Amino acid sequence: MLKHNSYFNGNVQSVGFERHGRRQTVGVIDTGEFHFSTEAPERMTVVAGELAIRIDGSTEWRAYPAGTSFEVAGKSGFDVRATQPTGYFCEFL
Amino acid sequence: MLKHNSYFNGNVQSVGFERHGRRQTVGVIDTGEFHFSTEAPERMTVVAGELAIRIDGSTEWRAYPAGTSFEVAGKSGFDVRATQPTGYFCEFL
Repeated sequence: MLKHNSYFNGNVQSVGFERHGRRQTVGVIDTGEFHFSTEAPERMTVVAGELAIRIDGSTEWRAYPAGTSFEVAGKSGFDVRATQPTGYFCEFL
Repeated sequence: MLKHNSYFNGNVQSVGFERHGRRQTVGVIDTGEFHFSTEAPERMTVVAGELAIRIDGSTEWRAYPAGTSFEVAGKSGFDVRATQPTGYFCEFL
């Protein structure tokens, strides 16, 4: 059972699914800057393009090009900046 | 400008975008077997899970686990079989 999610007036959209009991999504972040809050811990893998990420509590932006991943603690959040629409794969840990 | 696509009664869903003038999508194929027709040639990369693929005109099913890609000619098609929901990245070539 797939589920379409839309955030930030459709500027971030994903398709959620469950495999082997774990929730995952694939999605796209359009050009812009957005803040996400995490409930569960999650691992984000950039599939196409590149994201700049600043984890809550940090002042440093870090670049994550396609093929790289970052993890975010639960009950936390992160800023994300995309200069071109960027595809990602998100795993809830 | 992102675009949500839904096929096969919602059993295949994707989010389409354009980067550097090229059309791409990320999406999910739910458990089942489906046939896709191609207009443009495309490259499919499995992001999470595994797909079995049979290109039109072939009798052979081939397995594509996460991290692998296959290409399909334009004006052609392929059968796809997923035993668990599987995430993909599609580039129109």
